[in-house]
Amino acid sequence: MRDFSDDHRALSINTATVRKQGDLVAITEACARADIKAISPWRDQVAHVGLNRAVAAVKDAGLELSGYCRGGMFPADAARLQEATDDNRRAVDEAVALGAPCLVLVVGGLPQYSRLGSPVSKDIDAARAMVEDGIATLLEYSSQAGLPLAIEPLHPMYAADRACVNTMRQALDICDRVDPERTGMLGLAVDVYHVWWDPELKEQIRRTGQDRLLAYHVCDWLVPTTDLLLDRGMMGDGVIDLRGIREAVEAVGFAGYSEVEIFSENNWWKRPMEEVLATCIERHRTVV
Amino acid sequence: MRDFSDDHRALSINTATVRKQGDLVAITEACARADIKAISPWRDQVAHVGLNRAVAAVKDAGLELSGYCRGGMFPADAARLQEATDDNRRAVDEAVALGAPCLVLVVGGLPQYSRLGSPVSKDIDAARAMVEDGIATLLEYSSQAGLPLAIEPLHPMYAADRACVNTMRQALDICDRVDPERTGMLGLAVDVYHVWWDPELKEQIRRTGQDRLLAYHVCDWLVPTTDLLLDRGMMGDGVIDLRGIREAVEAVGFAGYSEVEIFSENNWWKRPMEEVLATCIERHRTVV
Repeated sequence: MRDFSDDHRALSINTATVRKQGDLVAITEACARADIKAISPWRDQVAHVGLNRAVAAVKDAGLELSGYCRGGMFPADAARLQEATDDNRRAVDEAVALGAPCLVLVVGGLPQYSRLGSPVSKDIDAARAMVEDGIATLLEYSSQAGLPLAIEPLHPMYAADRACVNTMRQALDICDRVDPERTGMLGLAVDVYHVWWDPELKEQIRRTGQDRLLAYHVCDWLVPTTDLLLDRGMMGDGVIDLRGIREAVEAVGFAGYSEVEIFSENNWWKRPMEEVLATCIERHRTVV
Repeated sequence: MRDFSDDHRALSINTATVRKQGDLVAITEACARADIKAISPWRDQVAHVGLNRAVAAVKDAGLELSGYCRGGMFPADAARLQEATDDNRRAVDEAVALGAPCLVLVVGGLPQYSRLGSPVSKDIDAARAMVEDGIATLLEYSSQAGLPLAIEPLHPMYAADRACVNTMRQALDICDRVDPERTGMLGLAVDVYHVWWDPELKEQIRRTGQDRLLAYHVCDWLVPTTDLLLDRGMMGDGVIDLRGIREAVEAVGFAGYSEVEIFSENNWWKRPMEEVLATCIERHRTVV
């Protein structure tokens, strides 16, 4: 396993972690000052400053990208299907412009939450079929652009409204069906927050393999967790065996960034950006 | 599938659903007035009125039980292991005294949450091993008493602090290892709240089979869910395909009670008991 204790070259900051403290340009500048090598930006943060300015800011700060967040939200009624397709193609184009190594897919839940205005449904199997169709369709476009798609299995507590792909096994089954030749253009984004509880975690990490392990996200699970979405913990403050999981992903050959993604309305989003980044660095060296 | 529209003979009330509105005696009386045939009481509610009085109240109200909540909380350090064993044996004895058809097991999460005072651990695999040992040990005692144990897989959002058995597959794997002869003394309590999201739900229901499907719990998953524990929805108010799941459990021969278990701090716990029970009856007939 790589030794992170001496430097933080393998640290990436998902820009949602400090989204309340500044815009994307401010975040790139703060990362450069903290000698952070990589970020993973969100589309709304890119749109806020404009794509060209975002591309320039990333370049000026000497940053690499560890991913781009996010495409997906596939389930939709027929009237909104074209909207979803167009939206996802734009996400691919932006990711390419920014030099991202992959587009992270949060696949969407039931259609009424995935694409607002779609009729109410309780058929999660149907939503899952729409997700698989959507991934297959987008993959044709993204493959031509040479951009890998990273399916992110989300914690089951988000199954209804954010992502109906909820385990690594399920995501890998989709990969096997949609990309059986393992072209390198479809894989997983593995976020410890979503998968740490899975009794099959280690087995499914081995099944993923280096070629399909496209991104690795860290944070921590707090006890108690006071909000389903916005109460993620800083690495080390919760119950996740971070070293054990990193050991497993590195054992299959993963050598990429450890990307910190923390949504924390009442704690980390309220602290100064420099303090948050300094804490990410310290925890990266000591507990990740 | 059974037709529930004309009567509510198959309805059971888990007494936590109205725990704020009255004690166990008051609940049994209200259930009798509403012509409800069964309840599933909690240990603390039984202890509050005393076991003998609880037994008499159930009998006086002409009620059956659909389960007894709950044993479990197995992970513990060595100093607290005997406490856990003794506590679970008392739960078995109480269930037998009350005439319960099974003891529901919420198996516990990491030892520091399962048995307070145990040292802090992040090793969920170790906790799971303790759970399996605990079930095997308790099964010797409960089998002699003729009382089946029902492992309740809990939603993954409770993996740290309440139950590290989080899928039906995982629970059934434990059953296969601990009770390979399928003695009828070990099975599952299937609560739609915990398992509705599982891509393998229908497959694992078939695998469970009639002999291991010991209890069936209903409520609903709300969007948004504002609290991880105390914001369960009334059947019909959320996104769970209740009819589809009941069809699957009845297809394997389940013919028991549909037990309503709702923890709802800001809604159903604040309404009069009669209104809650009347709503359970109406939803049982129309959407369960």
